[in-house]
Amino acid sequence: MPEFLRLITPEEALSKFLAAFPDSLSSNEEVIPTVDALGRILSQSVLAEEPSPPFDRSTVDGYAVRAKDTYGASASLPAYLKLIGEIDMGTEAEVALQATEALSIHTGGMIPHGSNAVVMIENTQIVHEGEIEVFKPVAEGENILQKGEDVQVGDVILEVGKRIRAQEIGGLMALGKTKIGVSKKPRVGILSTGDEIIPPRIEPSPGQIRDINSYTLSALLTKAGGIPIRHGIIPDRYEDLLNAARMSHAQDDMVVITAGSSVSVHDQTANVIQELGEPGVLVHGVSIRPGKPTILAIADDVPIIGLPGNPVSALVVAGLFVVPAIRKLLGMTLDEIVPQVLARLSINVSSETGREDYLPVKLLQSKDGWVAEPIFGRSNLIFTLVRADGLVRIPPKATGLPSGAEVSVRLF
Amino acid sequence: MPEFLRLITPEEALSKFLAAFPDSLSSNEEVIPTVDALGRILSQSVLAEEPSPPFDRSTVDGYAVRAKDTYGASASLPAYLKLIGEIDMGTEAEVALQATEALSIHTGGMIPHGSNAVVMIENTQIVHEGEIEVFKPVAEGENILQKGEDVQVGDVILEVGKRIRAQEIGGLMALGKTKIGVSKKPRVGILSTGDEIIPPRIEPSPGQIRDINSYTLSALLTKAGGIPIRHGIIPDRYEDLLNAARMSHAQDDMVVITAGSSVSVHDQTANVIQELGEPGVLVHGVSIRPGKPTILAIADDVPIIGLPGNPVSALVVAGLFVVPAIRKLLGMTLDEIVPQVLARLSINVSSETGREDYLPVKLLQSKDGWVAEPIFGRSNLIFTLVRADGLVRIPPKATGLPSGAEVSVRLF
Repeated sequence: MPEFLRLITPEEALSKFLAAFPDSLSSNEEVIPTVDALGRILSQSVLAEEPSPPFDRSTVDGYAVRAKDTYGASASLPAYLKLIGEIDMGTEAEVALQATEALSIHTGGMIPHGSNAVVMIENTQIVHEGEIEVFKPVAEGENILQKGEDVQVGDVILEVGKRIRAQEIGGLMALGKTKIGVSKKPRVGILSTGDEIIPPRIEPSPGQIRDINSYTLSALLTKAGGIPIRHGIIPDRYEDLLNAARMSHAQDDMVVITAGSSVSVHDQTANVIQELGEPGVLVHGVSIRPGKPTILAIADDVPIIGLPGNPVSALVVAGLFVVPAIRKLLGMTLDEIVPQVLARLSINVSSETGREDYLPVKLLQSKDGWVAEPIFGRSNLIFTLVRADGLVRIPPKATGLPSGAEVSVRLF
Repeated sequence: MPEFLRLITPEEALSKFLAAFPDSLSSNEEVIPTVDALGRILSQSVLAEEPSPPFDRSTVDGYAVRAKDTYGASASLPAYLKLIGEIDMGTEAEVALQATEALSIHTGGMIPHGSNAVVMIENTQIVHEGEIEVFKPVAEGENILQKGEDVQVGDVILEVGKRIRAQEIGGLMALGKTKIGVSKKPRVGILSTGDEIIPPRIEPSPGQIRDINSYTLSALLTKAGGIPIRHGIIPDRYEDLLNAARMSHAQDDMVVITAGSSVSVHDQTANVIQELGEPGVLVHGVSIRPGKPTILAIADDVPIIGLPGNPVSALVVAGLFVVPAIRKLLGMTLDEIVPQVLARLSINVSSETGREDYLPVKLLQSKDGWVAEPIFGRSNLIFTLVRADGLVRIPPKATGLPSGAEVSVRLF
């Protein structure tokens, strides 16, 4: 067995854990309609098979011309051009433009053969039917969006591992890619353990507590791109937990177990995880508050995470370890930008050197910007997080932070 | 008809628009399982009908005692207590604790009658079966989480208009609220107009462009909490657009129309919207780049938004007007915190005074923090947004921003 209870930093713990993921662990791909791909992760890079825009387009309302026919034109000495017709939107001009000719064109219209610039309508005047005056010269290419200016054939338009946002869907549609390969969502088994835990729909008897963790973790997993599979509440008996963990391990792409905070119960969880496969428990105990008794393991190619039973600890720790694990399973690059808000602390907060603290705070607007107000009261109650907008990380080197200190609040 | 083309600021435009929403516009409520409520908006405030925690709980592994039986205890002069049994998790102690008695208890266990403190196991030792030594005194209430310490009966635990996150689901489950009333998702009709626009699955002929806006707007609307209803591509004919707009207006909770950038087409859109009902067009033209030809209207209690046809403009403007409109329909409070990242501009950027500019930027990590690099090339091409991580707002008073200026990047 690895040496347990030697506490390491959250960063060390995470990198040790992720480094142990075999390559085979990433999800398989599935092909889905692009229109349904919001938030999904690309399972392969996408190349442009056609240019965008697909033809030269006008960026203004005006007249397609040959640039040199307008050189020297001014209000006092306009250039006179023969207006030979109009280019309808969505069609190609029927004729090629000859010298001293102009074709009326709309924004987004297709530049006709023979033309290399567009004169804005504001710089022209119709003299009589079939002839226009141009008051201002245009340069070659002026007011034209070139074919392929956005994307050329063969360009990598989207890289593997990228999360698909609204604009990626737009870019794919622009190139006719109405189906797309994405990573399958990993199935994550959730086991909530504890003899005192009951399903939320049941009225608790004295000593009983409703299950919170199965549901907060389901929500977090869903948001992170996984599929939560709730395996229910498991009694604190070794055999029961081992059977439930084996079932989830056999079925799911990842297993998350929340254990009670009692030391005996927690050691039991570690022992059960150790039985599931090789290499077993990699990290047992992390120098973090809340969340010290965290377990990170890999058993026969399935990541297993043991979380503290306290709902606040479980949710905070899941954000630090479960979410990155899902990203890795999805094949995401891990450097996604974490939305943060800069704020000033409203009061002094203390912390223990050598331990990373995550402090739930409420954000209040002041005339000098955001103020981060720590949530008062015990920090291990679920409504502490309900009242909070985000978490302030207090680095392990600090012994606390003074009132007024600038902090970066990680929004939930 | 209101005075068109008088340009107002985005802030003025938005407040004029939202102020004109009748109260009747908010969505109706529906009752759904709490487990499915992630991201939904509460349609009414929620009161606690029971306390949380529901009983006094131990926060440590140890022994439930009477505090005064431990007063004066030390390593050299321990207090001796009679160990009368163990409190199993999820059950109530069968007996009340008497003076000089102790009951073994686990973290989360229910404090027995007669006890008012818990001694940590680390500060005790078993002398022989049935007797323990206590080396450190405990104060009344020490290591106990009081019944109702998190939430008391009658507390407003969640306010109407709040978005439900993982922790709200947990808090609701803790109190047995397995179903919850949320605002119905507003149905938003999307009309994409233009003779040159074709469905993405079709191979374009010369002059034709695939529809992007229907899909980027669908994604944005979905993320904002609405249900996109795509009514397809409408030709640039007055009667066609009027018929399609009337159908969407009759069916949907909001209508979004993207029009080509050509001036004639844009005026046509405004005229069609004006025909749909009272009070009609409220704003036509906003001092913003991209997105100047934006139309905001209310027609017989249905908000209508006319967006520029350019895909970048449409998506940026939709973020500024469509998303807040959906929030209002959902009954959300509008002061939700916008995730931002502070960064320094990599180059000088210019801007026009009196106009608010939104500049797409890529975020790069440097040793001094984030650097915001404007996306080079034309700003009105969809892959500009694909390459961008967020937008930098250049305020209307600025004539630009210097290289190195600190900017707040609104993440997509």
